[in-house]
Amino acid sequence: MPAPAPQRVTSAAIVKFRAFEEENGTLVPLTALKEIPFPIGRIFYVYGVAAGDIRGEHAHRECHQMLVCLRGICEITVDDGTETRSFALDSPKQGLHVPPTLWATQRYGSRDTVLLVVTDQPYNEADYLRDYDAFLAFRGVARRRAANG
Amino acid sequence: MPAPAPQRVTSAAIVKFRAFEEENGTLVPLTALKEIPFPIGRIFYVYGVAAGDIRGEHAHRECHQMLVCLRGICEITVDDGTETRSFALDSPKQGLHVPPTLWATQRYGSRDTVLLVVTDQPYNEADYLRDYDAFLAFRGVARRRAANG
Repeated sequence: MPAPAPQRVTSAAIVKFRAFEEENGTLVPLTALKEIPFPIGRIFYVYGVAAGDIRGEHAHRECHQMLVCLRGICEITVDDGTETRSFALDSPKQGLHVPPTLWATQRYGSRDTVLLVVTDQPYNEADYLRDYDAFLAFRGVARRRAANG
Repeated sequence: MPAPAPQRVTSAAIVKFRAFEEENGTLVPLTALKEIPFPIGRIFYVYGVAAGDIRGEHAHRECHQMLVCLRGICEITVDDGTETRSFALDSPKQGLHVPPTLWATQRYGSRDTVLLVVTDQPYNEADYLRDYDAFLAFRGVARRRAANG
């Protein structure tokens, strides 16, 4: 299978989920190939992050991700090497689809933030680009200072 | 494919997850057919439940579920028509695998509880047994008063 074409930041998109709000709580379902636009190979969740701390700071060559903030607030910035775009996730009723080839960082807004990530692939270290210069080379972009916004 | 054989409550089991505890937070990965002992067809999460409120109260004919309490505390009771068993989930580092054919209820211990459920199948109303007498008939058990413990 050929590697996916590099995506622009405009390919990262908020997806609104259907929430079943009942008297005794709210239920949000995420089905593979429905609300999640890919098969589900793995999920992971992150918690216990100090307010203001940054995680992520890598890109994936092929892996799709859907990021959902289940509690608290998390600011996600995506970067295609040319342009950046930020999203504030503060509700379990929406997710951010981050397609492969975008550099992404997450800034946790509060200690009680819980971030759920749904991916199409099992963990594969070879899929990660963890060095920003290597990411720019992968994108075919000359080294620059990251733009804001 | 034949329907799965009815399970006893002893088939419901706590699964310990590997947690990557780092300086800037904890990450827990759940991979299909690895930490999750089935393919992942759907996930859902429940939040905003008043302390003490009960949800669930149904069985699945074929669907497997892994329940994970991401925040707060949730008491899960499983019932095979003959015997019941309860588990207190209070950590994101473990899950409860509930195989099909068991009646399950969840008692939410605090308003901030977030319960994540991973299942092998998309939603299918025909897979649900929502009436306790119908569940007992499905299990081939005469009506009784539910035992405690």
